[in-house]
Amino acid sequence: MNILEQIRKEHPWLDINTSYDLRRGKPSNLQLDVTQNILESIQIPFEMDGIDLRNYGEPEGIPSARALGAEILGTKDSETIALDNASLTLMHQILACSYFFGFQSSKIHSESKILCPSPGYDRHFKLIENFGIEMITIPFQDDGPDLNAIETILKKEKNIGGIVCVPRHSNPTGHTYSDSNVRSMFKMFAPLNKNFMILWDNAYACHDLKETISQTNASVIAKEFNIEDNIFHFGSTSKMTLAGSGISFLSSSKENLDKFIDYRNSVTVGPNKMNQGLHVEYFKIMPIKQQMQKMKEILLPKFEITDHYLTMLKDERLGSFSNPTGGYFFSYDSKKSNCEEIIDTCQKLNLKLLPPGSSFPYNNDPDKKNIRIAPTFPSNDELEKSMKILTSVAKHLN
Amino acid sequence: MNILEQIRKEHPWLDINTSYDLRRGKPSNLQLDVTQNILESIQIPFEMDGIDLRNYGEPEGIPSARALGAEILGTKDSETIALDNASLTLMHQILACSYFFGFQSSKIHSESKILCPSPGYDRHFKLIENFGIEMITIPFQDDGPDLNAIETILKKEKNIGGIVCVPRHSNPTGHTYSDSNVRSMFKMFAPLNKNFMILWDNAYACHDLKETISQTNASVIAKEFNIEDNIFHFGSTSKMTLAGSGISFLSSSKENLDKFIDYRNSVTVGPNKMNQGLHVEYFKIMPIKQQMQKMKEILLPKFEITDHYLTMLKDERLGSFSNPTGGYFFSYDSKKSNCEEIIDTCQKLNLKLLPPGSSFPYNNDPDKKNIRIAPTFPSNDELEKSMKILTSVAKHLN
Repeated sequence: MNILEQIRKEHPWLDINTSYDLRRGKPSNLQLDVTQNILESIQIPFEMDGIDLRNYGEPEGIPSARALGAEILGTKDSETIALDNASLTLMHQILACSYFFGFQSSKIHSESKILCPSPGYDRHFKLIENFGIEMITIPFQDDGPDLNAIETILKKEKNIGGIVCVPRHSNPTGHTYSDSNVRSMFKMFAPLNKNFMILWDNAYACHDLKETISQTNASVIAKEFNIEDNIFHFGSTSKMTLAGSGISFLSSSKENLDKFIDYRNSVTVGPNKMNQGLHVEYFKIMPIKQQMQKMKEILLPKFEITDHYLTMLKDERLGSFSNPTGGYFFSYDSKKSNCEEIIDTCQKLNLKLLPPGSSFPYNNDPDKKNIRIAPTFPSNDELEKSMKILTSVAKHLN
Repeated sequence: MNILEQIRKEHPWLDINTSYDLRRGKPSNLQLDVTQNILESIQIPFEMDGIDLRNYGEPEGIPSARALGAEILGTKDSETIALDNASLTLMHQILACSYFFGFQSSKIHSESKILCPSPGYDRHFKLIENFGIEMITIPFQDDGPDLNAIETILKKEKNIGGIVCVPRHSNPTGHTYSDSNVRSMFKMFAPLNKNFMILWDNAYACHDLKETISQTNASVIAKEFNIEDNIFHFGSTSKMTLAGSGISFLSSSKENLDKFIDYRNSVTVGPNKMNQGLHVEYFKIMPIKQQMQKMKEILLPKFEITDHYLTMLKDERLGSFSNPTGGYFFSYDSKKSNCEEIIDTCQKLNLKLLPPGSSFPYNNDPDKKNIRIAPTFPSNDELEKSMKILTSVAKHLN
């Protein structure tokens, strides 16, 4: 009996017509229903903060939306701007502005290299790759990116132009950087402050599901090392309310924001202010904490299911996994360097996982072990079955 | 008595506390009220075309929004995609994709040069300039870009990588390109089809205010010369319903769209589909023709006022002006090369106009004559007064 037959025998509920999917970090219908219920009671505002939301103007976003962004990112209103529906698009525009226009303290170019703590967010890496920028994989230590690895690279390499991070509930490992880790990193970056970009994607700033360490805002730490002009915070409501129809935020020094708005005037006549107004109204009715509590009620059980099965594997010494206290993902490392075989075998059992290496620059997982797990979208039952497939496969291929 | 005193005497209603503004092509409140009235009766849809609009996905936009874009641009549904709120952002992403990724038949680079029929749209020029791409100013003939000028440049220059056009009611001159003009242009571009981009911004595709010649769709003409892979159509609802909160469209060959969607996957997780759904619902209640008829009722009187005053100047041989049959702008050329003086003097009388050269690449108006007039936003009374100021100044500075 081959492995597939054995697993099918262990799980008689497996059938060829039902497929499972742990690929993308999408909110579940239950989460979206929470948001829809509130939205249905809101009339889209046409005016806010004394501004006609229907017309062009306000390239920095409306003040109320900027305040919302500052609340989410823990930054100052005056150093936070509110824009359109995707923080990834913002990051694209920030990189383009840096590349073609240059910020005062960061100007990437074709020889630049960007540090990429990994496993990390696949779309970040694809975005940077598409600028022709070299990426350098940096592993993690418990409380953030591996400081020794960064130190070694900084000594060895020239033209290190920046780093891309998800500092809280990192996608997919769930790392939440400690202040001490951030302080040590920033100290190492300080000598490069003439030309260095810290791309700080705080996509999961409010997404604690379990007790999580608190963090000093990174701009405060950056100021200690005179690198406040080097940091760009990103965030959005995408994983809070509506995926794809939310609003995004950028925070940086006043100088960087002015430069960016000047650049952006050739890229758009201004953001969708009606959508900004809608989100401001939304969070008046459902404050951020309350909204995230509702999300937690839906997501925590999914995290517990995933945790249960990965703990089983870990206890049987069949690999390791991060134990995220929030966010949207898990990251599992197989015991042997056989993630490709595991992913392929799962595929044959109708469980879709991202291709091997997806969470690494150039899809190159140095250990061939990493599998990203996105547990949010499936129902609890589907998730449980997906995890049963994955754990069975991991056991049989050990 | 100096000029300012003379003009103040001629127009006793002039006072220092009232200012006038003919700078930006923004819809007026009356136009936006039309849209708001309909929007207030629509519930944002959460599902359409069998797609959950609340979640990620559908990078090409939802089918109903794509069909709407195809109707506006006169293109095929299958070759039209619907995206976010700004066609300018789309053009930025298309240029970035061409620069870093390359389309099959267009790959701009730092040595590329783009033909810019001028006077043209200032944000187009700023966008191209920001990529470090050289722009070459091309004048107009009556029915489109000056064919002789294009021929001369193509003979003389290397690395001509494209052209940027507003083919109907061109901003700001109002030129609507004839089929014969387009055919002659495309014939000249055909030998360059290995690497050439036709950026075809049809922002005013449905914006006829007076009888306007009909146009064969440019992709049909492009096919006659085997350059259908070189053309990129842009459009949006911005000047139809809501400015800044609309949806934008891109049409090109299937191959280009596939490449672009692949590139865009690193730039966004997908468009704001709820806003797409909202616009689809809007145009179900208020079909495009009916909406544009309502806009015409508001805009035509403004065009007639502007036309009246510029005709007066022309009849007195004090300069020339285009006579747009639609769109959002007028373009006035002073008799002498003194547009800067005219603009400065208007400013002193509290009438704001764009700085000299604004409608030219590098702000460089070769004749120092051009003044763009955006008559849509002010009330009819404010517009009339603005035009009185401008004509008085033009007469006195003759």
